[in-house]
Amino acid sequence: MELYSHEYFMNEAMKQARTAFDDGEIPVGAIVVCRNTIISRAYNQTEKLTDVTAHAEILAITAASNYLGSKYLKECKLYVTLEPCIMCAGATFWAQLGELHFAAEDLHRGFSTLQAPVLHPKTKVFSGMMAQESNHLLQEFFKILRNK
Amino acid sequence: MELYSHEYFMNEAMKQARTAFDDGEIPVGAIVVCRNTIISRAYNQTEKLTDVTAHAEILAITAASNYLGSKYLKECKLYVTLEPCIMCAGATFWAQLGELHFAAEDLHRGFSTLQAPVLHPKTKVFSGMMAQESNHLLQEFFKILRNK
Repeated sequence: MELYSHEYFMNEAMKQARTAFDDGEIPVGAIVVCRNTIISRAYNQTEKLTDVTAHAEILAITAASNYLGSKYLKECKLYVTLEPCIMCAGATFWAQLGELHFAAEDLHRGFSTLQAPVLHPKTKVFSGMMAQESNHLLQEFFKILRNK
Repeated sequence: MELYSHEYFMNEAMKQARTAFDDGEIPVGAIVVCRNTIISRAYNQTEKLTDVTAHAEILAITAASNYLGSKYLKECKLYVTLEPCIMCAGATFWAQLGELHFAAEDLHRGFSTLQAPVLHPKTKVFSGMMAQESNHLLQEFFKILRNK
């Protein structure tokens, strides 16, 4: 069985972010991987659903739990193109997420700005992969928004 | 027009918590009030929905935004029977919630344990009303759970 790389999975999350971009949503995408298989894919839909809780991570976690029939995602990896906010980091805590991989940092609303223990102590964190691509897409989005 | 009291609204949230109790869910209930009218009611459904994000507050916020057709709940009051966790507090931040009223404190997972600015700066916070009733219901729930 061929194992996919972290790059492959983050690129799949980036594809979700680009779908958000095309839909006029802040371009953030997420996927959940369990045993080398993508079990959920989601992108930010706060505008379409008129719902501040419809972040990519929340939708991906809900879908992954639905797929597995388990509230807990201990064996799972979340790949997301932007550092999770406090709400989404709190969701990963409850899910007891195995690994969190995020691309770009969110210096304004990312969970790490709090400098407080928000994640589950067993969640391993990796960051920076494809950060440039993710930042570029976000900057492009806000540039278009400003010129509207 | 008769104005309902904060006690009336918190009691309505307690009714939701009792429904959660009867359903075998950790008994937490929430309502959202806008212009003296209850626009959403919800209770914790993490077990039924197999979803860690299905906290009473998240469900109530989503339903309130759906009702109003607005992502923002600046003019709204959330009444919840237990101090919101970090995830739910993060959701109230994004909604720019007007007022947060919670009954019992959550000394383990309540947002205030972080001692960090999690809520929106404009959200007014009130706590303690019906705390005893809420704590009693929670203790009863966990007592039954332990004896199972």
